[in-house]
Amino acid sequence: MTQKLIFTNLVGDAIDTLVSDLGNPSVFVIVDVNTAQYVLPVLSEQTKAVQNGKVITIKSGDINKTLDSVQGVWKELQDAGATRNSVVINVGGGVVTDLGGFAAATFKRGMRVINVPTTLLGAVDASVGGKTGINFNGYKNEIGSFTEPLASIISTGFFVTLSQQELLSGYAEMLKHGLLDSRQQLAELLNYSVVYPIFDPDRLLTLIEDSVEVKQRVVEADFEEAGARKALNLGHTVGHAFESLALKRQSPIPHGFAVAQGCVVALILSHIKLGFPSDVLHNFADYVRKNYTAFNFDCDDYPVLLDYMRHDKKNATPDQIAFTLLADVGDARIGQVTTDDEIRSALDIYRDMMGI
Amino acid sequence: MTQKLIFTNLVGDAIDTLVSDLGNPSVFVIVDVNTAQYVLPVLSEQTKAVQNGKVITIKSGDINKTLDSVQGVWKELQDAGATRNSVVINVGGGVVTDLGGFAAATFKRGMRVINVPTTLLGAVDASVGGKTGINFNGYKNEIGSFTEPLASIISTGFFVTLSQQELLSGYAEMLKHGLLDSRQQLAELLNYSVVYPIFDPDRLLTLIEDSVEVKQRVVEADFEEAGARKALNLGHTVGHAFESLALKRQSPIPHGFAVAQGCVVALILSHIKLGFPSDVLHNFADYVRKNYTAFNFDCDDYPVLLDYMRHDKKNATPDQIAFTLLADVGDARIGQVTTDDEIRSALDIYRDMMGI
Repeated sequence: MTQKLIFTNLVGDAIDTLVSDLGNPSVFVIVDVNTAQYVLPVLSEQTKAVQNGKVITIKSGDINKTLDSVQGVWKELQDAGATRNSVVINVGGGVVTDLGGFAAATFKRGMRVINVPTTLLGAVDASVGGKTGINFNGYKNEIGSFTEPLASIISTGFFVTLSQQELLSGYAEMLKHGLLDSRQQLAELLNYSVVYPIFDPDRLLTLIEDSVEVKQRVVEADFEEAGARKALNLGHTVGHAFESLALKRQSPIPHGFAVAQGCVVALILSHIKLGFPSDVLHNFADYVRKNYTAFNFDCDDYPVLLDYMRHDKKNATPDQIAFTLLADVGDARIGQVTTDDEIRSALDIYRDMMGI
Repeated sequence: MTQKLIFTNLVGDAIDTLVSDLGNPSVFVIVDVNTAQYVLPVLSEQTKAVQNGKVITIKSGDINKTLDSVQGVWKELQDAGATRNSVVINVGGGVVTDLGGFAAATFKRGMRVINVPTTLLGAVDASVGGKTGINFNGYKNEIGSFTEPLASIISTGFFVTLSQQELLSGYAEMLKHGLLDSRQQLAELLNYSVVYPIFDPDRLLTLIEDSVEVKQRVVEADFEEAGARKALNLGHTVGHAFESLALKRQSPIPHGFAVAQGCVVALILSHIKLGFPSDVLHNFADYVRKNYTAFNFDCDDYPVLLDYMRHDKKNATPDQIAFTLLADVGDARIGQVTTDDEIRSALDIYRDMMGI
């Protein structure tokens, strides 16, 4: 791991210093149509490197995280004479950093990358860990690489334009990191609110710094996800099942909302199977109930939810459902094979706790 | 570097041992239409892993080293349920190992790869160094990655079906490695002939082993080609210019032939600029003249040749021509900026030595 993590609300200075340290190579700025409109004008005033860089704009949204978009980026890099010494600066959310990262990782076998995440989810999740990728032939993130950026510049200044839903969605990953770290970090997170009463960018930046550190520690121990990195899947097996069911009902829910609620189910299973302390479970479930809309389902939905969990690509064998669970806050146990009965019980308890 | 290099003419056993050591994951065998016809039937009889593997066939030739072919491979991997634990076995020349390597490096962010080069050029060049790639939008190897295979199994048994031209083309890279290594290795190579009086697969395997070791040593010191790895470009700046001129005349020459002759020009420049010993130069030039058809040009071609050299992508700055030269056998000096006059003199001497 050589990736630099820079936590600052002086993003322009950080970029100019990095580019200057590299000997002022040619700069390519990858944005999507949203960050082109809302972030780029502000950022250009703060940094010469971005101001003088060649801007490449991609379409926004996960639906455009495609090979077609990557080819467009490759062609623009080629036409503008990008070399292996050039620097790509990705300015945007996860789609921009995933896709721009993949385009840069493969152009002339790899250019240097600086990520400037502009969403909370991007800052706490996509900015660390070196996963790049695109969707392919109907599968999410099917094509990609493990390639770390040179640096990620993490700030909260851009978040003022995010919706409450976007802020909460990113905060769910922070809650997950809190569960993986310590009671103290979890308590700080549960005592804060990302959306009310006020948005405080400096306090949030400190919380993000702690949160990203947790992810970085896990990733460093297992870069290519052979084992320990699977701890980061906490809440995601059930979360993905909730997302899939919501999509099937044609009323999709944000990823982070599904993760927050998936974490509640994972903690219930952790309590049942590993004795995870019930007071922490209840505090956590309370926070999720108050801040995230409860995901609604009844026992008729259990078979389809179990089916989604069984097809999660993180399962080691096709027919067993394996979870990342916690014996305590900060004590993750990966690959916990769980029976359908245990899952059904956990879903019963979840519905009861969430009042649905 | 964790890549295993296995030199053996018992290829089937080597594959089965590797696959068994990996716990017998699902196997995908990538071939082109030629190796599908000539190599695969033989190999299938020697190894259960290949026999039971799913075969993916791509079109042959550099013209098919495209993103379209890669997408075809990705789709077949997807349809057959390949996972990150599956193993890809590339059986073929440089096109198969480059393209198959890139497809595998990016599918689900990276599968494990075993290379089985079936050409001499593939064995001594593409099998070591971890470069994968495809052509894109008119540029060679524009898109790719530095991703090492788990292992390369290097054998000479498959070479009996290669043409003299193919054998000589691969041998040119071995001559280059000899120049980069030692007088002894160079002498052994100049005392051998890959095409006559007889083809001796066991003796050739030993020579290949020494040759690949040279490349591996250089690559290990500088995996991502920041500096020292440029030594491997010896002979390639002029060689590429010869190739381009031949292509312009619509009578293309094999890459290795261009490299062998490019090495002669590089040694002449090395003699002029760095005092490279003239007896070695003359021995080397003799060997090339006898074994490789002399590339024919006169002084009217100098401007276009200089122009090709100026546009070589390995030049650090756009207007200077920089060569890898040798102060002596085994003593490479990269980035030797050379004037047009020096190059013209070297081309004069080359024509004289080669009798053209």
